[in-house]
Amino acid sequence: MLRLAPPDYQRFIQAEHLVSTFGGGEANVAVSLSNFGIPAEFVTRLPKNDIAEWCLSYLRRYNTGTQYIIRGGDRMGIYFLENGAVARASKVIYDRAESAIAQIKPGMIDWKNIFKEAQWFHWTGITPALSQGAADACLEAIKIANESGLTVSCDLNFRKNLWKYGKSASVIMPALVEGCDIILGNEEDAEKVFGIKPEGFDVTNTGGEVDALEFESVCKQLMGKFPKAKKVIITLRGSINANHNTWSGCLYDGEKLFQSKCYDITHIVDRVGGGDSFMGGLIYGLITYPGEDRKALDFAVAASALKHTVYGDFNLVSVAEVEQLLKGDGSGRVVR
Amino acid sequence: MLRLAPPDYQRFIQAEHLVSTFGGGEANVAVSLSNFGIPAEFVTRLPKNDIAEWCLSYLRRYNTGTQYIIRGGDRMGIYFLENGAVARASKVIYDRAESAIAQIKPGMIDWKNIFKEAQWFHWTGITPALSQGAADACLEAIKIANESGLTVSCDLNFRKNLWKYGKSASVIMPALVEGCDIILGNEEDAEKVFGIKPEGFDVTNTGGEVDALEFESVCKQLMGKFPKAKKVIITLRGSINANHNTWSGCLYDGEKLFQSKCYDITHIVDRVGGGDSFMGGLIYGLITYPGEDRKALDFAVAASALKHTVYGDFNLVSVAEVEQLLKGDGSGRVVR
Amino acid sequence: MLRLAPPDYQRFIQAEHLVSTFGGGEANVAVSLSNFGIPAEFVTRLPKNDIAEWCLSYLRRYNTGTQYIIRGGDRMGIYFLENGAVARASKVIYDRAESAIAQIKPGMIDWKNIFKEAQWFHWTGITPALSQGAADACLEAIKIANESGLTVSCDLNFRKNLWKYGKSASVIMPALVEGCDIILGNEEDAEKVFGIKPEGFDVTNTGGEVDALEFESVCKQLMGKFPKAKKVIITLRGSINANHNTWSGCLYDGEKLFQSKCYDITHIVDRVGGGDSFMGGLIYGLITYPGEDRKALDFAVAASALKHTVYGDFNLVSVAEVEQLLKGDGSGRVVR
Amino acid sequence: MLRLAPPDYQRFIQAEHLVSTFGGGEANVAVSLSNFGIPAEFVTRLPKNDIAEWCLSYLRRYNTGTQYIIRGGDRMGIYFLENGAVARASKVIYDRAESAIAQIKPGMIDWKNIFKEAQWFHWTGITPALSQGAADACLEAIKIANESGLTVSCDLNFRKNLWKYGKSASVIMPALVEGCDIILGNEEDAEKVFGIKPEGFDVTNTGGEVDALEFESVCKQLMGKFPKAKKVIITLRGSINANHNTWSGCLYDGEKLFQSKCYDITHIVDRVGGGDSFMGGLIYGLITYPGEDRKALDFAVAASALKHTVYGDFNLVSVAEVEQLLKGDGSGRVVR
Amino acid sequence: MLRLAPPDYQRFIQAEHLVSTFGGGEANVAVSLSNFGIPAEFVTRLPKNDIAEWCLSYLRRYNTGTQYIIRGGDRMGIYFLENGAVARASKVIYDRAESAIAQIKPGMIDWKNIFKEAQWFHWTGITPALSQGAADACLEAIKIANESGLTVSCDLNFRKNLWKYGKSASVIMPALVEGCDIILGNEEDAEKVFGIKPEGFDVTNTGGEVDALEFESVCKQLMGKFPKAKKVIITLRGSINANHNTWSGCLYDGEKLFQSKCYDITHIVDRVGGGDSFMGGLIYGLITYPGEDRKALDFAVAASALKHTVYGDFNLVSVAEVEQLLKGDGSGRVVR
Amino acid sequence: MLRLAPPDYQRFIQAEHLVSTFGGGEANVAVSLSNFGIPAEFVTRLPKNDIAEWCLSYLRRYNTGTQYIIRGGDRMGIYFLENGAVARASKVIYDRAESAIAQIKPGMIDWKNIFKEAQWFHWTGITPALSQGAADACLEAIKIANESGLTVSCDLNFRKNLWKYGKSASVIMPALVEGCDIILGNEEDAEKVFGIKPEGFDVTNTGGEVDALEFESVCKQLMGKFPKAKKVIITLRGSINANHNTWSGCLYDGEKLFQSKCYDITHIVDRVGGGDSFMGGLIYGLITYPGEDRKALDFAVAASALKHTVYGDFNLVSVAEVEQLLKGDGSGRVVR
Repeated sequence: MLRLAPPDYQRFIQAEHLVSTFGGGEANVAVSLSNFGIPAEFVTRLPKNDIAEWCLSYLRRYNTGTQYIIRGGDRMGIYFLENGAVARASKVIYDRAESAIAQIKPGMIDWKNIFKEAQWFHWTGITPALSQGAADACLEAIKIANESGLTVSCDLNFRKNLWKYGKSASVIMPALVEGCDIILGNEEDAEKVFGIKPEGFDVTNTGGEVDALEFESVCKQLMGKFPKAKKVIITLRGSINANHNTWSGCLYDGEKLFQSKCYDITHIVDRVGGGDSFMGGLIYGLITYPGEDRKALDFAVAASALKHTVYGDFNLVSVAEVEQLLKGDGSGRVVR
Repeated sequence: MLRLAPPDYQRFIQAEHLVSTFGGGEANVAVSLSNFGIPAEFVTRLPKNDIAEWCLSYLRRYNTGTQYIIRGGDRMGIYFLENGAVARASKVIYDRAESAIAQIKPGMIDWKNIFKEAQWFHWTGITPALSQGAADACLEAIKIANESGLTVSCDLNFRKNLWKYGKSASVIMPALVEGCDIILGNEEDAEKVFGIKPEGFDVTNTGGEVDALEFESVCKQLMGKFPKAKKVIITLRGSINANHNTWSGCLYDGEKLFQSKCYDITHIVDRVGGGDSFMGGLIYGLITYPGEDRKALDFAVAASALKHTVYGDFNLVSVAEVEQLLKGDGSGRVVR
Repeated sequence: MLRLAPPDYQRFIQAEHLVSTFGGGEANVAVSLSNFGIPAEFVTRLPKNDIAEWCLSYLRRYNTGTQYIIRGGDRMGIYFLENGAVARASKVIYDRAESAIAQIKPGMIDWKNIFKEAQWFHWTGITPALSQGAADACLEAIKIANESGLTVSCDLNFRKNLWKYGKSASVIMPALVEGCDIILGNEEDAEKVFGIKPEGFDVTNTGGEVDALEFESVCKQLMGKFPKAKKVIITLRGSINANHNTWSGCLYDGEKLFQSKCYDITHIVDRVGGGDSFMGGLIYGLITYPGEDRKALDFAVAASALKHTVYGDFNLVSVAEVEQLLKGDGSGRVVR
Repeated sequence: MLRLAPPDYQRFIQAEHLVSTFGGGEANVAVSLSNFGIPAEFVTRLPKNDIAEWCLSYLRRYNTGTQYIIRGGDRMGIYFLENGAVARASKVIYDRAESAIAQIKPGMIDWKNIFKEAQWFHWTGITPALSQGAADACLEAIKIANESGLTVSCDLNFRKNLWKYGKSASVIMPALVEGCDIILGNEEDAEKVFGIKPEGFDVTNTGGEVDALEFESVCKQLMGKFPKAKKVIITLRGSINANHNTWSGCLYDGEKLFQSKCYDITHIVDRVGGGDSFMGGLIYGLITYPGEDRKALDFAVAASALKHTVYGDFNLVSVAEVEQLLKGDGSGRVVR
Repeated sequence: MLRLAPPDYQRFIQAEHLVSTFGGGEANVAVSLSNFGIPAEFVTRLPKNDIAEWCLSYLRRYNTGTQYIIRGGDRMGIYFLENGAVARASKVIYDRAESAIAQIKPGMIDWKNIFKEAQWFHWTGITPALSQGAADACLEAIKIANESGLTVSCDLNFRKNLWKYGKSASVIMPALVEGCDIILGNEEDAEKVFGIKPEGFDVTNTGGEVDALEFESVCKQLMGKFPKAKKVIITLRGSINANHNTWSGCLYDGEKLFQSKCYDITHIVDRVGGGDSFMGGLIYGLITYPGEDRKALDFAVAASALKHTVYGDFNLVSVAEVEQLLKGDGSGRVVR
Repeated sequence: MLRLAPPDYQRFIQAEHLVSTFGGGEANVAVSLSNFGIPAEFVTRLPKNDIAEWCLSYLRRYNTGTQYIIRGGDRMGIYFLENGAVARASKVIYDRAESAIAQIKPGMIDWKNIFKEAQWFHWTGITPALSQGAADACLEAIKIANESGLTVSCDLNFRKNLWKYGKSASVIMPALVEGCDIILGNEEDAEKVFGIKPEGFDVTNTGGEVDALEFESVCKQLMGKFPKAKKVIITLRGSINANHNTWSGCLYDGEKLFQSKCYDITHIVDRVGGGDSFMGGLIYGLITYPGEDRKALDFAVAASALKHTVYGDFNLVSVAEVEQLLKGDGSGRVVR
């Protein structure tokens, strides 16, 4: 998607120009990985025009593979982002009607070929939200990935404003999530998509820190519902205000709940893509530190905490920078 | 439409931000008129979101009426503009699929009420190009305008990339143009829409100045085809290169062909909206100098020559500035 | 006034350009109201030049009425604003000598006609500070407003650097405030203009939060002095530093003191116009929720807390956004 | 003066920021000289505020002396500049009412002390246009300069919008010009200030090149009127349009008329300050090449032709660059 | 190299920021080719720091291969560019002392491996100008390329300010050029490097158009000196001024001189990299149209004429755009 | 040095332009002093090119003397700065290889002449880190300063990435520091250069506030090692994160340790140059308040706390602003 955002804290009505970057759930994860040195291909459908060429060029900046992207359709999805401040919330206006990816159908992408050399397939709940065709194509990909022996991960990523083609997330998502080895979500996703609530935890509470322990019940319920899943991960955002969040996560491996450190992000630069950078960090961690789930979780949380300091959807911090933070140095002292 | 353009002469692939303005054929004419002090209402359909609010605010800057704009639909049309230079052409990428105005249907707008106090209705060939519904709504408006005794004008404005809903301009346009008192177009419009060619004139010639006299035959043929028309006007652009054009026009009143001065526009700031500013100047002239077609034509050409020095789709020059140019002062000397 | 400010946190001496917006006490209140959907006319005097046309266009963006603005005089008032940070204070340099509004005299504006359809007249202590003529014209307006049965409100808005024409605020203001139904001010205004001090409260204390209860005595003293007043409102700003303020207010209706929630504004975008947005919110609240003073006060405080997140003098948040904050959601979570 | 200009070719009504530089007739000449290595002091009156400090800092960038600038008064003069294009003229809006320099009176500046080490005093017709006090102070300076044996030069610089204090240029200027050794002006100045017209030359002609020879009669008449003058210089601007001018000059030494080469300036960057850069180049030339009037004239014309390629009022080209152009190299080939 | 340039036509002394792009002779050719769809690897040496990472990312935007770039050394070369206008020349300030590429030595790059799959090797006269090591490494590459059967091309690219390590171009270059199949240069290169002058042609003439026929003698002399060369190509720039150049070229194949059309580039956006884009177009042409030297030459000239409309060192126009210009359409009409 | 920094919080890889300012340890101190009204000359070596002229112009803005700067050498030092946020650290990339100052040798600067009218000489540990020549020239200056009776101060300023010419700081620095009357450093400098550690204090702790009392031992050890020193000053930075620091300092006069207030800098604008602004404030204080070390220290800490709110290396706050903060007003309330 083309992301268009007024600079600084301008409202749309004040804008004279829109800062143009590219992003979107799956692209953000792919860029995270290629940026960390893990080869990653972003697979999607884009129209044949100069805006799409611009998008391809943008992805190449960060070494993300674009060779399997198919071309066709009328337009690229756009989202408009207005950056909030303090008690004024950021706003996202989706402009995805009739985008090339929304018009996709099963059979268009040659998943078998793509998966030949691959070991991992990641998808998010945004794709099946776009259209029946996108949901079908997503399911097709998951099935072929399962057959090809790939690890399959998903980010539930519930966006209520996207599900507009007549089916709800609760109807479509179960068949897709069934094929997943790793499920990531936040408190709201679990409830809105599967009706799963933590016990004794008030999800309408939007301010302050949250108690991660209460999410163990969510994880267990998810794993019960989707027995293929080996790990369930929950991201925990405490929204003190639009500039100041806390950020942590927990990972449940079917037996234990690992809970990460909680980062205090006092001067957010850009929080969009935070969850995707978590997923990117998690996949990096699970691949790099096999069998060390805590290390993978810690890496994911630190990587995505740092993402909040980078403008745009993409997480452009290095592995060395994440490791520095993991060593406990969040002082921000000048490196020279 | 939201217009998004890289700054200066950047290509899309180089852009880090897009300059955001609003424009479009009919809006440009409405702004021209309100800017010249003629009350004008822009009538269209816009979605209910913050991008549309921004558009309304933008129109109000120039005193253009927005009270009859209806709200609904998914999205606003967008066009991307890449500014060319010398031999590199400017590029427009339309992104209008499923825009609110493309989804319009007859009956949605209360034309009778709108026309109650009005004396003039103007439309362009862009609207019927969008969808069958838009073509039907346009025809509805023309008929009610005719019944209400308004002067009806149109700009043929043929855009081959827009006619995509299964009908061609040559099928749809005749019924619409039939209701018009005043028809404006350029050489290409007449040929592409109605197959009308000037005799002995090579329309594939894209460089240098053109000989206006050869267009008399075009005017006569158009008037023969559409007998309600009282005036046919042709704009004449000589494209020396993307920075340097000549600009003039001629008006045929059924008897005589008036031909304007030809302006040499050596350092174009923005040529998009040039034809619309011509139409705006013409309507201003015909209303302000009734019975003085030459004066109206001269005003239109001078106004639109000045438009080429103003960034954006809208013509933001004053009547006094047009009159100064009409007096022969194109020296650009500092006014202090 | 034209407002000219270096971008970001630049000092004047570093600036290469100045961000240009328009603002000023009364204009800010008018824009607040029209932005909330309450028809409002801004009445002032502007010169006949392109800078004033620009100002008019700017006001129209936000639907604020400009039809009663009279034209004449030499120049428009300007203020230069340098945005402070942490312990470095923001600086305002007024450049209002011989502005069109400072040269105004009674009789220039046809208040009777303007007030024919109006129900409310608001003025601020800035206008009578400019010149004897401006003070006289302000008094004239208040008297005619009283005669015409309008509600009259004022914001005391004491600015020591403006009172330069030989009369002090304490001499001029009483006659003006006498005609007011609603008086708004802060702790400093009451003391500097009328010598009214809260008991036991140290007004030289500039840091940290303030205790609103001590202002009840100020309200009572003001109401005692100006018996026409039905409500006295005090805005309470706690200046922790230039980026971090607390913000609340209290309203005294002659019997009870209502005290609002206190907002913690940790990352201010722009605090200029904060008081004006309070007044705009208050008038909106008093009109929209008649008889519900607490609700009006709460709306005013929430609206103006949000103003601190919007660049420029004007408060460009929607009623829905204020209501969201009033419901307790100050989390700034992304809306999508 | 603070100069405020929308960027690129924006109209005021489109501007979101104004590019801020400093300039003005006498300052521009002083900067030209200090930039060429001739020590120069700019003498004026500025208020005691941060905008004036900013101005002082700006002058120091180019090594211009500021030690004799006195401080006081309310405000600094401002001018707003809108950059024209092709047939749309640039616009200057003066905002100089009650500026510190307009409030000056004789006796405020200690000219005797300033002139102690000086050899040249230059003034322009803009200063006496501001107020009676400024005209008186200017006359005072000229007299003391004459007594102190300095060369005195002036640029007539007629600006009709400035003479507003009840006296016309034709009444005030003669006494001032009487004290001058060197008089510079253009065709319009001579006519508007002294009623001197060239024979057989149509000064209302604003387009194209002008014939310098016809100005000999103007020079002779000026020298006849002001017998102290040893040289009269006329700048000749041919305004093809706002982007394209021709530029030359002629110098009359009482006997011969030297006429310079005519430069074709096809892509003007900024023409404001063109005349001042001519004067700066001329003073440099007369000091550096004593007795070689042609060389001084040629240097002046080449220097000011180059000024048209530099943004802002100031001429920031080097002596080496002027000399390169004087050698005939106007090719603009990259120097590397 | 990192290229740092003040925006628009600012002089360095006016700049508040520098536009940052990357470029340099060989990189520009590589980008031209990859942009036209010809796989190309840029081979160089860059330090191990974030500035070099940025450079790599920048090259990837345009699909240029970076896999053979070796890492080491202290710093990246920089060049500062000041954009000239009209008679004021653009200025390049090289800042390449101790750059990673200047510190290169033979043996550092594994040319044999790199050339395994390659068919073409291109170098420019800038590399051997940097240091003895760079000259030696360049010679090493040419020899291995010859052995590996690659076509070798060079651009003489004489820059007098670079040859500072004690050897002159005339001493170093012959051994390098000896290995070339294709030699490109301009009039100045041939004279300054090899002392070859066209007969009867005044190379000090910097303005206006040049007569290409006189360069046949230069081509013949070059081919006589370097018998391996199969084609000699000369670019012909007519510098009317910094904004307006003419541009053409001629190719000598040992028998005939092909001379291209001459393009009139009236509003240059960026002329740096013009020669490199010629070379890129030529290699594209020679590969794509084997045996059709005229077509290759025409493509090269048209491609590089279009380069003058693109900001930065790189030529970002498409093959389709070049072909459109070759068909004779230089009108710059809006494509929509 | 030329300082080049991406705007806002961009990473290098995202940058399209670099904000260009000038700075460096000694220059920053000189600007601090001249900005506070203390005449100060910056003495260094710069190349003869336009980038150096730009630097000179930049220094003159703030009244800093440039008359003793010698010219020669290849290039100016550059440093690239990436602004960090929260837990992401700012990064400085030095690009100083072969800079003019690194190539300096004793005898190049005429210190005797420069010191004739001077009373103070300040140097920093950055200069001897550059090259043996620079270290030698620095020692030469210190010796002549001692002979000439100047007060000599130094800032230890250890930068591990600079010491690359084969000698370590611990070898070079002692001879230089021996000549100093006043020594300033932070905890890290003392340890890294002289191996001096505070007792019981963990210097690897990078977060939170630090306990200044533990530094008394550091001061005593330094004074013991360098008996000429009359005062040792330590700056204390608590790095909560990249946006939020605490800042204080302590001064030891051989008998007592004065400890300043600790400022909480919650929204840093630019922390680079913080230590230099401390030194600038300290020298100002020691000169202005002789014998009042506490006052000098307090001034230094307040001045440098305010520096953190000013973009660029230079501290551009006024004495009045520092005094306001010293009076306890850090509220940042708007001054109008």
